[in-house]
Amino acid sequence: MHRTPRLRNIPFKPSQASSVLRDRVRRATFLEKLADPKDLAPLFQNDDYIAWSGFTGVGYPKSVPTAIADHVEANNLQSKLRMNLFVGASVGPEVEERWAKLDMIARRYPHQVGKEIAKGINYGRIEFADKHLSMFPQDLTYGYYSLRKTHGDPKKYLNWAIVEATAITEDGHIVPGASVGATPEILECAEKIIIEVNTHLPNLEGLHDISQSFVPPFRQPYLVSHPEDRIGKTAIAIDPDRVVAIVESHHPDNTGPNSPENEESRAIADHLIEFLSSEVDAGRIPRSLLPLQSGIGNVANSIIGGLAAGPFDNVMVWTEVLQDTFLKFFDSGKLDFATATSIKFSPEGFDHFYSHWHDYKDRLLLRSQQVANSPEIIRRLGVIAMNTPLEVDIYAHANSTCALGSRMLNGLGGSADFLRNAKLSIMHTPSSRPTRSDPTGISCIVPFASHIDQTEHDLDVVVTEQGLADLRGLSPRERAPLIIKNCAHPDYRDMLMDYYERSLHECLAAGRGHEPHMLRNAFKMHLQLMEHGTMKVDKWD
Amino acid sequence: MHRTPRLRNIPFKPSQASSVLRDRVRRATFLEKLADPKDLAPLFQNDDYIAWSGFTGVGYPKSVPTAIADHVEANNLQSKLRMNLFVGASVGPEVEERWAKLDMIARRYPHQVGKEIAKGINYGRIEFADKHLSMFPQDLTYGYYSLRKTHGDPKKYLNWAIVEATAITEDGHIVPGASVGATPEILECAEKIIIEVNTHLPNLEGLHDISQSFVPPFRQPYLVSHPEDRIGKTAIAIDPDRVVAIVESHHPDNTGPNSPENEESRAIADHLIEFLSSEVDAGRIPRSLLPLQSGIGNVANSIIGGLAAGPFDNVMVWTEVLQDTFLKFFDSGKLDFATATSIKFSPEGFDHFYSHWHDYKDRLLLRSQQVANSPEIIRRLGVIAMNTPLEVDIYAHANSTCALGSRMLNGLGGSADFLRNAKLSIMHTPSSRPTRSDPTGISCIVPFASHIDQTEHDLDVVVTEQGLADLRGLSPRERAPLIIKNCAHPDYRDMLMDYYERSLHECLAAGRGHEPHMLRNAFKMHLQLMEHGTMKVDKWD
Repeated sequence: MHRTPRLRNIPFKPSQASSVLRDRVRRATFLEKLADPKDLAPLFQNDDYIAWSGFTGVGYPKSVPTAIADHVEANNLQSKLRMNLFVGASVGPEVEERWAKLDMIARRYPHQVGKEIAKGINYGRIEFADKHLSMFPQDLTYGYYSLRKTHGDPKKYLNWAIVEATAITEDGHIVPGASVGATPEILECAEKIIIEVNTHLPNLEGLHDISQSFVPPFRQPYLVSHPEDRIGKTAIAIDPDRVVAIVESHHPDNTGPNSPENEESRAIADHLIEFLSSEVDAGRIPRSLLPLQSGIGNVANSIIGGLAAGPFDNVMVWTEVLQDTFLKFFDSGKLDFATATSIKFSPEGFDHFYSHWHDYKDRLLLRSQQVANSPEIIRRLGVIAMNTPLEVDIYAHANSTCALGSRMLNGLGGSADFLRNAKLSIMHTPSSRPTRSDPTGISCIVPFASHIDQTEHDLDVVVTEQGLADLRGLSPRERAPLIIKNCAHPDYRDMLMDYYERSLHECLAAGRGHEPHMLRNAFKMHLQLMEHGTMKVDKWD
Repeated sequence: MHRTPRLRNIPFKPSQASSVLRDRVRRATFLEKLADPKDLAPLFQNDDYIAWSGFTGVGYPKSVPTAIADHVEANNLQSKLRMNLFVGASVGPEVEERWAKLDMIARRYPHQVGKEIAKGINYGRIEFADKHLSMFPQDLTYGYYSLRKTHGDPKKYLNWAIVEATAITEDGHIVPGASVGATPEILECAEKIIIEVNTHLPNLEGLHDISQSFVPPFRQPYLVSHPEDRIGKTAIAIDPDRVVAIVESHHPDNTGPNSPENEESRAIADHLIEFLSSEVDAGRIPRSLLPLQSGIGNVANSIIGGLAAGPFDNVMVWTEVLQDTFLKFFDSGKLDFATATSIKFSPEGFDHFYSHWHDYKDRLLLRSQQVANSPEIIRRLGVIAMNTPLEVDIYAHANSTCALGSRMLNGLGGSADFLRNAKLSIMHTPSSRPTRSDPTGISCIVPFASHIDQTEHDLDVVVTEQGLADLRGLSPRERAPLIIKNCAHPDYRDMLMDYYERSLHECLAAGRGHEPHMLRNAFKMHLQLMEHGTMKVDKWD
């Protein structure tokens, strides 16, 4: 039988529960577990396996992680209390960045955003591995992240789960905040659970669709055939005995403004909307399109903004994250329904959303990331997927994660879940980026991607502000000239074409001309960048 | 309304139908279309889009492709009659190799096996693109391979389908031979259909499970929760009006012997079976394992052979191709059920199989490659996937296709369908291969894979005859020393560790140490091989 973990030093203070908290926590016995985060902080031990709710900086616990950081600072535990931290994706900077700065993170999977945490990873203090966001929760339930865990209940893969809720039902089930992410699986794997009930946010009951996660050989089909299909419940079932503390929190999700559009992002969006229109005209997709997935950033915002003013009606969205422009898209009357695993609005966007909650709530559904990013559903629905890489090579391999092959930015995220399985797999990027010394010092089209996250077998379309390359049905030798001609920045076009033609000549002569390369020069542009601050090379040999 | 294509010059000769053919072709009107392959050959035009049934060298049409090749030879049409050829995977050498040799192939998607066809691709005469085998049939039905097709019915993406059948039902539905592959989608997309009824083979009715292929937004879940679940019919429905000719064929599938085991492949199999046993002991997989996928080749044969003598009972197989060792596995009593898209037995294996057909038929099911390789089902079942790469790098990116980054061998096949979605994704390879001058001239563990088909996010385990590296839950900096230590050949171990340590040192100092590389040296071992016939390098700088 499962033994309820006992926590010493947590005084029960049910009298402290505010009336709004009592409204939100409908399971009365949980109120007896109401605690002050300060009293919880000392319970965390070095090498603990901890998971938080949260995804793309929303829906994460704010109070307890802050209290733990305060505790570390107050007791000079920097670099001494170091934990293994698992979160569906990124969380707010006030917790993750602060933990990284205090050297409290030994390991962090599978995604992150922030200067301090990236520094920790790239300077070797934090072990990080990115993983397809659809797979992270299942690998957690398989125990793959806890093979080397040495303390606590060996059958519970995590020592702690700290999750945000906007309500708790009579059954003790958890109504999440603005994201679902990996919260269901995190709660399933944790020995001890702390729930932060966020009373600053409205009770978001009804926004979520929570399906149970099974492991093979018991896994069943996800019976979703349309984006609006519900396959679960509105709250996450948990084992109430594992709940060791409830905390009231009043902090909003700490989001910033969305990336603004610019001329480049609008040019990319125009190319894309023209392409989608021609696909509709050719009868390959319906006038309502197929469910859209769109990444984060200014290009994504331009695309969604463009669609709000565009020729397509009754559009549906099946994506990972919704940003402010989706509100505009809804308000344009052209978007019928959207589903994701997180809503990451700007503070103003959230204000608008929460104050018009009744207008949106029936057109929106948040699911777990295992479902939102499920290859099964993405392929079935025939999603149109659009994401930004760091660089794409002339044969359409793409780097989504590591600058110069080595420096981790944020991680893979769900890009490969969508790009591998979509009906139309699109990568959009500016053709160049500036360096300190050269306004076009970095070409986003390169001979050989310095790290490969998406393979040539996964991309259908590459688009930059220069133009669009439709790669469907083309061989590598047909792809390369098209990508260079249509997508590369003019400053790099001849250089890349020269690389391709020399490679072609050499490789055909040697009988290895399927995907021509000069391996000795494959990374020459990257080396040039490291040494001279620009990717521009004078000659190839 | 659809207009039946009219073929001139095909004399109707129903009197020629043998009694065995009349038994097999239960739709009488089809017998009126009985034709001599010789009379069909002149109908094929330059730049035609043609698809054949067939997968891994079985179930392909033999007579008509041979007649077309004879016609080309007789009329000096080499390099003049060049066609776009689409087949689920590879077919027999007597047709594909011969077509390649006669320069009859302008384009060939998405997989192939054979010296002549590989030559055509690598010397630039044949445009080739490999694609996930689960996606090829759907991309065909999307019209992605026919965007630039200029003649014939524009709504039919293929001018011709030529398919092998072992029977035709009263409804005109097609009972395939020893593979299903992409045949359902090929038949759906073709303007004109030629059926080769193979009377040398037994009527294989009941061996196949044929589900209908829908395109989004009409696609539905594949309701398979266990390998033995049937979700379709026993024959492929077609539009009978498109059938322009029936041909009788007597040729067996032209398979060779299976690759023999050797000491190396047995050592790899031993490591793997030990690993699987420890996973069972840890409770992460049941004693009956989870459904197995195993590639082609001697290591695969050793593994399956090892399992037939191993500690696991009631095993199930969910794979792409079944080879001879699976017969031994069945006969050992340890294998309960197997499903694939093709059975590629040796001639002796086929003799044994066909003569014991009644013992096997209820324990075996062939499905279309879209189903057999479906990410949806592979992930749901939690398949244990095992495949051979050309090379794996120290961070677990793998090259499955292009030697030295450029020379195409066979193509991606279904490797990425399985490795991306399996519960345990395993790549097995000898640690080294010989060159002409050095018995260990090629290291299969390299600093940077010269072509990447499987990313670091897709592999759980790498195993060579030297040992096994369990990569689950490890960061890149943890993976590299483990792969080098456990898997690299002793001749390369120090060299690779030196590469890693120098890279680590440089990259940490520069704040890009997540996945340390010296890009200037990333392909040095490959360059050394091209120049000196061995990958052994003296020093890195």
